[in-house]
Amino acid sequence: MGEHTVTSFDDDLNHIQQLIRDMSELAGSMVGAAIRALVTSDNALAQRVVSDDAIMDARQRELDDRSIALIAKRQPMAQDLRAVVGAIRMAGDLERIGDLAKNIAKRVSAVGHGVTPRNLSHGIEGMADLVLRQVQSVIELYVARDADGLRTLRTDDEKIDARYTAVFRELLTYMMEDPRNITACTHLLFCAKNLERIGDHVTNIAENAYYVVTGEQLPVSRPKLDETQLSVLAE
Amino acid sequence: MGEHTVTSFDDDLNHIQQLIRDMSELAGSMVGAAIRALVTSDNALAQRVVSDDAIMDARQRELDDRSIALIAKRQPMAQDLRAVVGAIRMAGDLERIGDLAKNIAKRVSAVGHGVTPRNLSHGIEGMADLVLRQVQSVIELYVARDADGLRTLRTDDEKIDARYTAVFRELLTYMMEDPRNITACTHLLFCAKNLERIGDHVTNIAENAYYVVTGEQLPVSRPKLDETQLSVLAE
Repeated sequence: MGEHTVTSFDDDLNHIQQLIRDMSELAGSMVGAAIRALVTSDNALAQRVVSDDAIMDARQRELDDRSIALIAKRQPMAQDLRAVVGAIRMAGDLERIGDLAKNIAKRVSAVGHGVTPRNLSHGIEGMADLVLRQVQSVIELYVARDADGLRTLRTDDEKIDARYTAVFRELLTYMMEDPRNITACTHLLFCAKNLERIGDHVTNIAENAYYVVTGEQLPVSRPKLDETQLSVLAE
Repeated sequence: MGEHTVTSFDDDLNHIQQLIRDMSELAGSMVGAAIRALVTSDNALAQRVVSDDAIMDARQRELDDRSIALIAKRQPMAQDLRAVVGAIRMAGDLERIGDLAKNIAKRVSAVGHGVTPRNLSHGIEGMADLVLRQVQSVIELYVARDADGLRTLRTDDEKIDARYTAVFRELLTYMMEDPRNITACTHLLFCAKNLERIGDHVTNIAENAYYVVTGEQLPVSRPKLDETQLSVLAE
C-alpha cells in the first residue's frame, strides 16, 4: 500500500488516475454486456453485469477515500487540487453509468424472448453503439488531455438524444399497435432512457475533464431536448 | 466570506451543515411542487421547479468548494473528516433529488389535462406523500443525530418500493385498456420511477448520515425489489 514508503504527490495522483481508467473500462464493458444481454436475451450475461456493479462501487469508494486522504495530507493548491476533485466527480459519474447498465441488465428477463420486434431492438442497438463509443472515448480523451476532443464529445450527446427520441416514439407506436407489447416495450423504454442518461453522465465527465485539463469551464450547453417535450403522439 | 477573519473549524463546518439544511428544504419543496404541478396540470408551477434546479446546482457547487477548501486548510482527522466527506455525499444525493423533481416537472405538459384517471393520480400522490415525508425527515434526523430514526427511515424505503410496483402495474393496465392512454401513462411511469429513485437517494443519505453520526456503517440492506422483476403482466 505504500504506507511505509515515501510517495510523491504525483505517485498518489497517478494511482487515482489509474483507478479512473479502471472504472472507465469497467463501465464500458458493463454497458456493452448489458446491451448484448438485452438483445440476445442472455440472462447469464445480465447476471454478470449485476455482479460487476459491486466491483464498480468498491472502486469508487477506494478512489474517494484515496482522494480525500490525498487532499488532507498534501493540501494541494490550484491545478493539483482541481485534478483530485475532478477525479472524485468523474468517478461519481462512472459509478452512475455502471448503475444504469445494471438497471438495463435487470430488465433482460422482464423483456423476455422474441417479444422485441427486430427493427426495434435495432433502434436501441444503434443508440447503444453511440453511447458505448462515448463511454469508451471520454476517459481516453481526458488521459490524452485532448480539450478539443472533449468539447466535440459533449456536442455529440445531441445525436444520442435525437436517437433516444426516435426510439421513444417507435416504442410508443408498438405499444399502441398491439397491447401485448406493452409490458416488454415499457421495460425497453426504461432501457432506452437509461442509455440516454448514460450519455448525460458522459457529458458531465467531459465537462469535468475539460475543466481539469484547461482550468476553464466549457460554455453552458444547449437546452436539453428530450422526450418530455413529446406531448402529442396519441391518435 | 470570512477570508479575513479567523474562523474555527466548527464555524466552517456549521456553515456547511447549514447549506445541507438549505438544500434539503429546497429538495422537499421541489418534490412537493413537482407533484402538485403534475396532479393539477399547473405548467407555471412546473416551470418554477425547473428554475429551482439551477439554485440547487449552485448550492451543491458552493458546498463542494467549501468542503474541499476546509479539508485542504484544516486537514481534519477521523470524525471531523467523516462529517465533511459525509456532507459532500449527502449534497450529491440532494442535488440528484432536485434533478428528479425537475424531470417530473418537465413531464407536466406532456401528461396534459384530464387524461389521468382519477384513482391513478391518487396512486402516484400516495407514493409521493411517502417520498416527500422521507425527503423532509432525513436531514432533520441527521441534524438531531438520531441514529435509530435514520435506521428506521431506511427500512421505510420498502414501503415506497411496494407502492411503486403497484403504480407500475396499474399504469400498464390503463395502457392495455385504452391505447389512447399510452403516451400520458408512459410519462406517468417515468414520474413514478423518479419518485422511487428519490426514495433510493433518501436511503443513501440515511446511510451516510448514520455513518457520520455513529462512525459505523449500517448493515447491508435487503436486496432491492422493483418492477424489473415483473415480467408476466401481459394479456
